[in-house]
Amino acid sequence: MTDKPASPIRPTDDEARALARALIDTARFAALAVLEPGSGLPAVTRVALATDEDGLPVSLISELSAHTRALMADPRCALLLGEPGGRGDPLTHPRLSLSCEADFVARDAPRRAALRSRYLRLRPKARLYADFADFHLVRFRPLRAALNGGFGRAWDMTADDLRPRGGQPGRF
Amino acid sequence: MTDKPASPIRPTDDEARALARALIDTARFAALAVLEPGSGLPAVTRVALATDEDGLPVSLISELSAHTRALMADPRCALLLGEPGGRGDPLTHPRLSLSCEADFVARDAPRRAALRSRYLRLRPKARLYADFADFHLVRFRPLRAALNGGFGRAWDMTADDLRPRGGQPGRF
Repeated sequence: MTDKPASPIRPTDDEARALARALIDTARFAALAVLEPGSGLPAVTRVALATDEDGLPVSLISELSAHTRALMADPRCALLLGEPGGRGDPLTHPRLSLSCEADFVARDAPRRAALRSRYLRLRPKARLYADFADFHLVRFRPLRAALNGGFGRAWDMTADDLRPRGGQPGRF
Repeated sequence: MTDKPASPIRPTDDEARALARALIDTARFAALAVLEPGSGLPAVTRVALATDEDGLPVSLISELSAHTRALMADPRCALLLGEPGGRGDPLTHPRLSLSCEADFVARDAPRRAALRSRYLRLRPKARLYADFADFHLVRFRPLRAALNGGFGRAWDMTADDLRPRGGQPGRF
């Protein structure tokens, strides 16, 4: 037994912001946590991930999946991004936990066609199912984030910390 | 637009049970979803993972992490296991979503020493921090599970479906 170490949360700097942003920009998938309708229990599943033109995380999800129905009932959710991959201790790989609100993109929304094109350019395998009636594009609006860069390297972040450099403040 | 396809949930068979069990036995880490104290919002983070002698998922987590404090306040949680890794579509890789209750192992619990030894044998890097005062061993007792083996291959499972072959029913 040793004494309890101090809190590992560090002041947010540009290096941490750039790491968080890189995790969002390169994520091919994420763990999505939702609240199960009725019970309110947490549930976590894997979803594909890309970004919209403002740098927000975006997915294409099916109503046949429980997570989609959960988000339709309650948009409060969380995402975990950052692929450990390879060998070594998975806890040394950086990852980003986002607290989000899910925002479904209506079929007739003005920017939907552009978003669909962008998504399919970034995730071409989704062409197989993108136009099935049960699939929906959904944006995830971050409320705040926790970045973990490995043991003892942790930051609490605002949504603004995650905005792309040069991005428009109102969009995030 | 095409018609809505039928539910992809299949009847659970021994092949699905074996796949779920293999995902638990080989998981080096998991996404852990918890309920944030106060707000009740979902939050999701990465934890290391191993198993106990009964095949239950086990982790070693720090009170300095928000997920640990959340589980101390409310043990209802969820785990996502199954590493996509490599290239190709991450959604074609099998993964298991577990609905769980977290069960902290008391420092003076009779089986703690054996569990600690097993954990450190399976996850030797954890020796660096296993005996820090803020770290706790925690078992995750599955209540039910959803197995996704790739598009159109999904199963809903009971805790009993996840029990190791030859395992004791009362332990799971």
